Amino acid sequence: MANQQFEECIDACAACAVACSYCATECLKESNPENLVKCIQLDLECAAICRSAAEVMSLGSRFSAHFCRICADACHACAQECERHAEMGMEHCRLCAEACRQCARVCEQMATSV
Amino acid sequence: MANQQFEECIDACAACAVACSYCATECLKESNPENLVKCIQLDLECAAICRSAAEVMSLGSRFSAHFCRICADACHACAQECERHAEMGMEHCRLCAEACRQCARVCEQMATSV
Amino acid sequence: MANQQFEECIDACAACAVACSYCATECLKESNPENLVKCIQLDLECAAICRSAAEVMSLGSRFSAHFCRICADACHACAQECERHAEMGMEHCRLCAEACRQCARVCEQMATSV
Amino acid sequence: MANQQFEECIDACAACAVACSYCATECLKESNPENLVKCIQLDLECAAICRSAAEVMSLGSRFSAHFCRICADACHACAQECERHAEMGMEHCRLCAEACRQCARVCEQMATSV
Repeated sequence: MANQQFEECIDACAACAVACSYCATECLKESNPENLVKCIQLDLECAAICRSAAEVMSLGSRFSAHFCRICADACHACAQECERHAEMGMEHCRLCAEACRQCARVCEQMATSV
Repeated sequence: MANQQFEECIDACAACAVACSYCATECLKESNPENLVKCIQLDLECAAICRSAAEVMSLGSRFSAHFCRICADACHACAQECERHAEMGMEHCRLCAEACRQCARVCEQMATSV
Repeated sequence: MANQQFEECIDACAACAVACSYCATECLKESNPENLVKCIQLDLECAAICRSAAEVMSLGSRFSAHFCRICADACHACAQECERHAEMGMEHCRLCAEACRQCARVCEQMATSV
Repeated sequence: MANQQFEECIDACAACAVACSYCATECLKESNPENLVKCIQLDLECAAICRSAAEVMSLGSRFSAHFCRICADACHACAQECERHAEMGMEHCRLCAEACRQCARVCEQMATSV
């Protein structure tokens, strides 16, 4: 529907932003939020960065590749942290890590192709 | 993936935001942007409102229903304008109107159910 | 600088969004984040809502008053929670509560005047 | 009030985002929007980028410098276009160019200092 070359990447960024915001609010409901502080912080940063990448690509901006480059880095950082908690059984972290890795993959392709 | 009760609505809002931003930038490339001024303005407002609704729902916010109510109104206003240009053959307006009507429908359900 | 009738309100919303995001990240650094869970959640919601209100007003949108109404409510809710922690000496909460009360005041005026 | 090292830069980005959105909507009201198409497009991109930079800095993110680098480039591009119309007497373009140049200056400092 959107700027065609960006379509898959916009979708991945939008989905990742939602997964990150959801993970942050679910972390706050856990019984041990003090162990999830780094996760929440990375969730918030990654959500903000994914949302901005999606918006900039929606506008067909010449700056899209730059955003995708940063977005991939933010996604990997967030995924790495979430994967630690996913191993301990946190489902919201598992879903978030999955969305982050997928988003990073698509953003990396975009960053090198435009 | 996201706050489950909001999942469909978040997706509709995210898709509509992208369609609106895309429609705005495509309108700017048309040969007669002076006839599309109202469309571009509504696109920009609707995109901003849809993005904010998606974000607020992603956070599982108690204010979600209020955002969905405004979002439905903004989507109907944008769809009405885009439909006029869709009749004249503008494909980006047709796609935008479609996304807006779908988003309005889901937001209206959400606004009355939470 | 901005849409003149909205200028003061846009500035208050932008300042409040920053104060809320800052408060959330500072809460995460405290030694007792488990006691600040509600504060962080409200910070995140209020930041998102203030940012959206500022954007919608920047566009001179007809939906501005609706956003200001919700924004005032979100600001009061966040201020109420932050004031509890400000009393215990948390400076970021004191600053956040102050920004929220100021933003709520200006948003309420805006909501009734346009 | 915000993450202290970022304070001036967050304020400049927030002010620039507002000036850009305002310039876009004012351009749409001019009698010759067809001559302002490039200006509106750059306004929209620059507004989105400034808003994201302000948000990322508000979170004290490690990715802040990267955002400031892109933001400075976007601001210069928008300022260059707006200055052309400012010379023809468009006040919203003059204000926008001024906000963009100021934001670019502060973002460049930030990008090299953190």
